[in-house]
Amino acid sequence: MSTWQTEALKAKTILQSSIPTQWLLPEDKLPPSDQKNVADFPRASGLFTNRELLITEMSATSLVAGMGAGRFSAEEVVVAFLKRAVLGHQLLNFATEFMADKAITRAKELDAYYRRTGKLVGPLHGVPISVKEHIGIKGLTCNGGYVAWVNDIAPEDALILQCLHKAGAIFHVRTNQPQSLMHLCCSNNLTGTTTNPYNRTLTPGGSSGGEGASMGFKCAPLGVGTDIGGSIRAPAAFCNAYGFRPTMRRNPCSGIKAPEPGQEAILGVVGPLAAQSLDDLELFQRVVLDAEPWDVETSLVPLPWRKVKESREFTVGIMWDDRTVRPHPPIIRALKAARSKLQAAGIKVVDWDPYKHAHGWDIISKLYFPDTASSQKTLLSQTNEPILPLTEWAFSYAHPTPLSIAEAWALNVARDEYRDEYHARMKARGVDFILCPAYVGVAPDLYEAQYWNYTAVWNVLDLPAVVFPSGMAVEEGDVGGKEGWVARNEVEEREWRKWWVDPGRFVGAPVGLQMVGRHFKDEETIAAAKVVEEVVRGSEGGRARL
Amino acid sequence: MSTWQTEALKAKTILQSSIPTQWLLPEDKLPPSDQKNVADFPRASGLFTNRELLITEMSATSLVAGMGAGRFSAEEVVVAFLKRAVLGHQLLNFATEFMADKAITRAKELDAYYRRTGKLVGPLHGVPISVKEHIGIKGLTCNGGYVAWVNDIAPEDALILQCLHKAGAIFHVRTNQPQSLMHLCCSNNLTGTTTNPYNRTLTPGGSSGGEGASMGFKCAPLGVGTDIGGSIRAPAAFCNAYGFRPTMRRNPCSGIKAPEPGQEAILGVVGPLAAQSLDDLELFQRVVLDAEPWDVETSLVPLPWRKVKESREFTVGIMWDDRTVRPHPPIIRALKAARSKLQAAGIKVVDWDPYKHAHGWDIISKLYFPDTASSQKTLLSQTNEPILPLTEWAFSYAHPTPLSIAEAWALNVARDEYRDEYHARMKARGVDFILCPAYVGVAPDLYEAQYWNYTAVWNVLDLPAVVFPSGMAVEEGDVGGKEGWVARNEVEEREWRKWWVDPGRFVGAPVGLQMVGRHFKDEETIAAAKVVEEVVRGSEGGRARL
Repeated sequence: MSTWQTEALKAKTILQSSIPTQWLLPEDKLPPSDQKNVADFPRASGLFTNRELLITEMSATSLVAGMGAGRFSAEEVVVAFLKRAVLGHQLLNFATEFMADKAITRAKELDAYYRRTGKLVGPLHGVPISVKEHIGIKGLTCNGGYVAWVNDIAPEDALILQCLHKAGAIFHVRTNQPQSLMHLCCSNNLTGTTTNPYNRTLTPGGSSGGEGASMGFKCAPLGVGTDIGGSIRAPAAFCNAYGFRPTMRRNPCSGIKAPEPGQEAILGVVGPLAAQSLDDLELFQRVVLDAEPWDVETSLVPLPWRKVKESREFTVGIMWDDRTVRPHPPIIRALKAARSKLQAAGIKVVDWDPYKHAHGWDIISKLYFPDTASSQKTLLSQTNEPILPLTEWAFSYAHPTPLSIAEAWALNVARDEYRDEYHARMKARGVDFILCPAYVGVAPDLYEAQYWNYTAVWNVLDLPAVVFPSGMAVEEGDVGGKEGWVARNEVEEREWRKWWVDPGRFVGAPVGLQMVGRHFKDEETIAAAKVVEEVVRGSEGGRARL
Repeated sequence: MSTWQTEALKAKTILQSSIPTQWLLPEDKLPPSDQKNVADFPRASGLFTNRELLITEMSATSLVAGMGAGRFSAEEVVVAFLKRAVLGHQLLNFATEFMADKAITRAKELDAYYRRTGKLVGPLHGVPISVKEHIGIKGLTCNGGYVAWVNDIAPEDALILQCLHKAGAIFHVRTNQPQSLMHLCCSNNLTGTTTNPYNRTLTPGGSSGGEGASMGFKCAPLGVGTDIGGSIRAPAAFCNAYGFRPTMRRNPCSGIKAPEPGQEAILGVVGPLAAQSLDDLELFQRVVLDAEPWDVETSLVPLPWRKVKESREFTVGIMWDDRTVRPHPPIIRALKAARSKLQAAGIKVVDWDPYKHAHGWDIISKLYFPDTASSQKTLLSQTNEPILPLTEWAFSYAHPTPLSIAEAWALNVARDEYRDEYHARMKARGVDFILCPAYVGVAPDLYEAQYWNYTAVWNVLDLPAVVFPSGMAVEEGDVGGKEGWVARNEVEEREWRKWWVDPGRFVGAPVGLQMVGRHFKDEETIAAAKVVEEVVRGSEGGRARL
């Protein structure tokens, strides 16, 4: 066994030894390995009481209300989610480490506090939250998807976890991420590949792919992910969940491990994923900003989370196509259904003409790796771990030679001009929000997520963007007329080949939608998404349609 | 005449042909060229009516109130200031271009509006404002201190000028700046050297040196400057005026010309200087942020100017020494007087121990020119204009070889850590504001301003900082005990040699003080500075003591 394998084994050992074995389902009780959709397996497994099923299908908001009314204890809540997470891990390989004992101890403390005072510790009292691995937890290793970092111990909890903890959250499981953190997929040389609960031959997305699986399987009502090109939103969309990319410099990033510290031309952001509702995304954001993280991490903007009135007085621009790759048929079907319902509900809808999205991609893809990804490559070469195909793919965005400082400055200027122009265009057209695909299609096959720009363009523009389930999934009829169809470019050709080779394999995969707001209008974006989701998902409500 | 001289002449021609000659004082009526202090010459000149003297010694706030009550017309106000500016230019060479006709036309329009409606156009109705040359004005050249840019025409008004204009401001004169914009002095190959109204052998400071002279001579109640290392605050301090460096990303910078666009590791800021009062600095800031510039320049933070209650419940830390260069005796005398008065007034005062200021300088000085100043040097070489000594001096901060992207990132990390640490230290010690020197001494001799770090450290820390006159000036007794004095390093040796060679030559030079607040606490900083100024300048009030 070569060195990198010995090192990588440490991550596997940490994971294996952390699994609370009492909740493992025997191999022979698991669904067959060729069963693709396991999202509903918890109900079939016989492992859960009805009460546990009920708890794990509740939103954080409802759970907190329930605990506040004394209907649940934090302990039973965290145990229910831990059980579900263990099963989810058996089926999807989404965890990197369980923290069961610590979580249960914490839950007992919260329960004691509640019994003693009759009060909740805070607005996240007893809410189990799963956490992407590279978000540091004091005393635990933090590898960020690199074998070279497998021995690194986080000196303290990431600041965002401190904010959530103070509000009563419980961290019970850490989740998987891809090598380099730069795949819209979730595979590394440490703990392997995570799969999608709705179809285990598909990716849960990435880089917060473990979080996508966690939300899709309901291993937690809330999760913490990070996003520099779609890494919260793709997993949310692929796994029938909710995700939010806040405007940069709102949520605190201290204690999150990644290569390129000090790179600030395109900042990654940390934000929430949720299994059940947009309300939970808002709850998360409110808790984080109520903690005033800018009083510790001074590069943040001191903007408290604002309460905004829900209103239907806004204009939604629907973007059908980014002019590089047309979305696959089920995505268009979902957008069309959304348009009809929004119009019927009296919400103003117009078409949104994408403005220079390819230019946006040109800027951001260069800014990801201005040093030819040398900091990442150095990390990989330290252990000689194999470079995975999607890592190579991401690094291929990098300019072959290092950018000079002046070249990097020119990209900053182009970025700011693009942002100002885009903003002016939205204002001029009176478009408050853009409803658009979160990806060219539904969850792609494992190791095949190659086209980032339905999400990354909003990173370069630094616009807040929320993903929510459309309530629809791929159906047998979703083939799309192949006759007369001509790819406009090689990228489109490539992305549609993936669809047409066998559309049937995607049947049942959920369709997420993305809604984008104006710079720093995070609050308005989530508020409007609630209205849009309610209208789009119709009277069936909740997640019933899938 | 070589090419650069031909080119430079264009700037001189623009200036000369813009001077409203009707207000020029004949040479023989001017004070002798060896008269150092000309600050009070307007009164002696016989050029002004008492009413004009009164008007030009009023604050913007009072002028607007007067115009609102119909006591003055905008036209007479702008004419009074134009006359004073023409005289000031004759004595100090501070202007790069007059805009008399346009200003008077605008004033007449404002007067007509007032007569028609009985209302003011806005909170800066009829206020003449001088503007540093590199802040673009539509249709006029914008050279930024470089001969190479002498033909560049600004395509539109800088966004900050648009905000001020909308509120009723009148721009009547553009002001001088040094070559490269990186001297705390004010000399270039275009329109020459600006001098200090309180002592024409001394510098007015820089890089907003023309603004310093404009404020010191009262050529406008308000001016617009820029600051990346002290360029608003040094001129304000040297010229007995007021100046404010806001937190980055609050005031809009679009349309301001400078090399290194896209450099964002250390952002220059634009902000006000004022001749008469801290209230005027606040008025300026309120007007700019009430215009919501972030809705155009999206890199700004959408933080409106907050109204804060004036309070005396704060703690001032006095910084006596930055541990590299002790301030000269008059500065210490002013700080000691301030301490006594603050204590007597019941305001909590403690000593502030500077935290790693040399480290801060190390970071910021590298971040000024990470590309070895090559963008600046290229501009200079385009015309072969001579490189002035203080330009060489500034460029000497640059690393001899270009920094790599990764090296620049490491500096960003060091900068952010330093900011977080400094902030934590202020919090831990309960210090709300730091009262400190604005420079090692009073205005230095021309071409001698070499030590930046009493101001630049607040740029690297991105803390809001306000400068106001202490009410004191250098006196005959201000020598300082030389016996036993030992320089702690070569920089201190150099800076004190400048003092001891002949302290008498500084007699009468005003002493400014600087007050620094916490990140984004711009409003609180100005509000507290008002309290401190009132206490420090005692019952004499206003500017009477100098």
